[in-house]
Amino acid sequence: MNATIDRIRRQVSDLHQELVRYNLVVWTAGNVSARVPGEDLLVIKPSGVPYDELTPANMIVCDLDGKVVEGEHAPSSDTAAHAYVYRHLPEVGGVVHTHSTYSCAWAARGEAVPCVLTAMADEFGAEIPVGPFALIGDDSIGRGIVDTLRGHRSPAVLMQNHGVFTIGKDAEAAVKAAVMCEDVARTVHLSRQLGEPLPIAQADIDSLNHRYQNVYGQPQAR
Amino acid sequence: MNATIDRIRRQVSDLHQELVRYNLVVWTAGNVSARVPGEDLLVIKPSGVPYDELTPANMIVCDLDGKVVEGEHAPSSDTAAHAYVYRHLPEVGGVVHTHSTYSCAWAARGEAVPCVLTAMADEFGAEIPVGPFALIGDDSIGRGIVDTLRGHRSPAVLMQNHGVFTIGKDAEAAVKAAVMCEDVARTVHLSRQLGEPLPIAQADIDSLNHRYQNVYGQPQAR
Amino acid sequence: MNATIDRIRRQVSDLHQELVRYNLVVWTAGNVSARVPGEDLLVIKPSGVPYDELTPANMIVCDLDGKVVEGEHAPSSDTAAHAYVYRHLPEVGGVVHTHSTYSCAWAARGEAVPCVLTAMADEFGAEIPVGPFALIGDDSIGRGIVDTLRGHRSPAVLMQNHGVFTIGKDAEAAVKAAVMCEDVARTVHLSRQLGEPLPIAQADIDSLNHRYQNVYGQPQAR
Amino acid sequence: MNATIDRIRRQVSDLHQELVRYNLVVWTAGNVSARVPGEDLLVIKPSGVPYDELTPANMIVCDLDGKVVEGEHAPSSDTAAHAYVYRHLPEVGGVVHTHSTYSCAWAARGEAVPCVLTAMADEFGAEIPVGPFALIGDDSIGRGIVDTLRGHRSPAVLMQNHGVFTIGKDAEAAVKAAVMCEDVARTVHLSRQLGEPLPIAQADIDSLNHRYQNVYGQPQAR
Repeated sequence: MNATIDRIRRQVSDLHQELVRYNLVVWTAGNVSARVPGEDLLVIKPSGVPYDELTPANMIVCDLDGKVVEGEHAPSSDTAAHAYVYRHLPEVGGVVHTHSTYSCAWAARGEAVPCVLTAMADEFGAEIPVGPFALIGDDSIGRGIVDTLRGHRSPAVLMQNHGVFTIGKDAEAAVKAAVMCEDVARTVHLSRQLGEPLPIAQADIDSLNHRYQNVYGQPQAR
Repeated sequence: MNATIDRIRRQVSDLHQELVRYNLVVWTAGNVSARVPGEDLLVIKPSGVPYDELTPANMIVCDLDGKVVEGEHAPSSDTAAHAYVYRHLPEVGGVVHTHSTYSCAWAARGEAVPCVLTAMADEFGAEIPVGPFALIGDDSIGRGIVDTLRGHRSPAVLMQNHGVFTIGKDAEAAVKAAVMCEDVARTVHLSRQLGEPLPIAQADIDSLNHRYQNVYGQPQAR
Repeated sequence: MNATIDRIRRQVSDLHQELVRYNLVVWTAGNVSARVPGEDLLVIKPSGVPYDELTPANMIVCDLDGKVVEGEHAPSSDTAAHAYVYRHLPEVGGVVHTHSTYSCAWAARGEAVPCVLTAMADEFGAEIPVGPFALIGDDSIGRGIVDTLRGHRSPAVLMQNHGVFTIGKDAEAAVKAAVMCEDVARTVHLSRQLGEPLPIAQADIDSLNHRYQNVYGQPQAR
Repeated sequence: MNATIDRIRRQVSDLHQELVRYNLVVWTAGNVSARVPGEDLLVIKPSGVPYDELTPANMIVCDLDGKVVEGEHAPSSDTAAHAYVYRHLPEVGGVVHTHSTYSCAWAARGEAVPCVLTAMADEFGAEIPVGPFALIGDDSIGRGIVDTLRGHRSPAVLMQNHGVFTIGKDAEAAVKAAVMCEDVARTVHLSRQLGEPLPIAQADIDSLNHRYQNVYGQPQAR
């Protein structure tokens, strides 16, 4: 059990560097968490610590109500939202939150990103939907995420006027979704600046998504 | 006293690297200063020295009229504006000036950045206001900064056709405000390219700002 | 023969770093391949392996039907398209595929990039054309690339709603075309945001392209 | 004399890294040259050599007709334009050419960048003007540069549909002008996307430019 938590601590710490590498965060604003497999626990970033000072040792372990179990710092101020997701979506093993630029630009207008790229059909299988405006401090954000993503193909939700939350079977999948969300939010934004992107037929979106989710991730290709 | 100045020299020198890291500056155009606690002194960047040649030793110590007390180079050509702020806003411990791209794009139109992101409500608590057009060479710029920010929640002001000045309780807080100012100026710019961002109700802005300024910065979370 | 394959493995592995350096790819989405000179073989990126884990040893060798000849991983899911190009365009020695941002923004609208820059006349000799929408899984993508580029001066094609494919006499030339394609797609996009770029007369495009393709690449200048 | 040329070789080689650092170039497209003080010689980048392979030793020494005096590679294909500038503007000690993105976006429309930022008044003292469309291969480009910049305050000219050339008293000043040109071209572009930048009165532009060119560069401030 300690070995599992140690592994998750390292994974969560390392994955924050991907947020930096892909320019999804400034200062201390975004965070990654992971569910501890087989336990009612999650591992998350400490609040307000710069990305280049993150280590496995200063990650925070919380229960699924967001209460600290291990850790010297306070956990991310977004911990309640992460914890809500883990309590209500048992298939989710990782959650990421960022204020990445283009995703937030759509979120500030409360507008979904339409599915007009084959890579978007692959990863998201649909538009990237918008969740409600919600204040921090209670379950509003978590509930908004879960209500929007439950039953939706997209692993990403744009929370209105706020930012993006992504989910995945593990933390790496959630980080990948965060990276891809910003990438397609940027490309579709740019495309729309000079006209209207051509739609992709629903049957083609379905076909691309089915193939990608079931064929592309074959074991031998990691 | 020498130990304090040495600490501030190091802090000011190091914080300039954050301006580089976040792409807020090109060539030698931006600068950070800090008040020396308990003294009528400030520490500021030398004029025209490249960022990768800055060291604690070549920082310039000035009095609060901007006159050099210690240092081989001339101080930043913006020293008079920094000094004016320290003279008139005793709670300010750090000042940053940049020509960061998106902030300047708003400043060139003389247009405030509206508060349409929760992260902006957190950090700025309001729109980011515009200060007057002012020429370098006397107190015009300093007075424009102080007149605009005194009594305003925002720690950042867009000086018309010029750039951005930010203030903070210390130099790190002022640098954070400069980083966040450019980040939200960019996101709101992009959002407005394709429509109108949704407003956030004033009561929600107030609530977010109050919480962030009073709860988020709890001691144990640095 | 082994020495040749080893050289091509190294070249293909190294060239992927250029895709990263020029921000043409995120996560694992783009790929480079090269024909093995004198053999009916190609070398290509393994599927789903991060760019900083690519080595000459984990490149995949395939025949020109895309069947794996050497390699532990599955080859890129775009291998069929690369293989189709090598089978049908014998002068092509390298192929690159990316979802680079500005190229995809044009591709999502199904719009060619007009030739309004002298650097574009040099490298592309014409507009960068659009190929058909095509689903992955059969020869549709490969056929779309070949049908669009055969007889066209441009070494780059924007596949509608998808991304960009470039070709070259070798893999380095194809990578250069991918870098230049994104560069001119970005510049022309930005130029059109504020008005209409001025056209370049066809005779001048012809003259620039002829000179660049025949004079600029003189032996002593590599 | 050899010591002088060696110093200029190193300076020109090193300054190319600034073009890379500020993202003014892709692949091998931009170049820096310097006049050898007291000689009818210039030092310039070799043609087609990647930026990370540039060394003092592989720089090319040419006479002011662009003929190679020392060097194994062919000189930059833009050498004739650089040489023309040195022949006709004796006060110029450095020339830079790039296809930097935002500058080219203005150049493709044949539109000057208006002087709406104080930093632009400082460095350029006026709008950044547009030079004629000109084909490579004779003196057309050099003549276009000289005819546009002679008697103009701006050290930068946007050559229509092509790119930017900058001049300076030495190569470092020309590189600074190239960096600042792209910076203000970007900021003014962005500002104009959402409205019209406010003009700066001509008298204020004059005053800013006079002060910057005569006071800011004081000896002790390098």
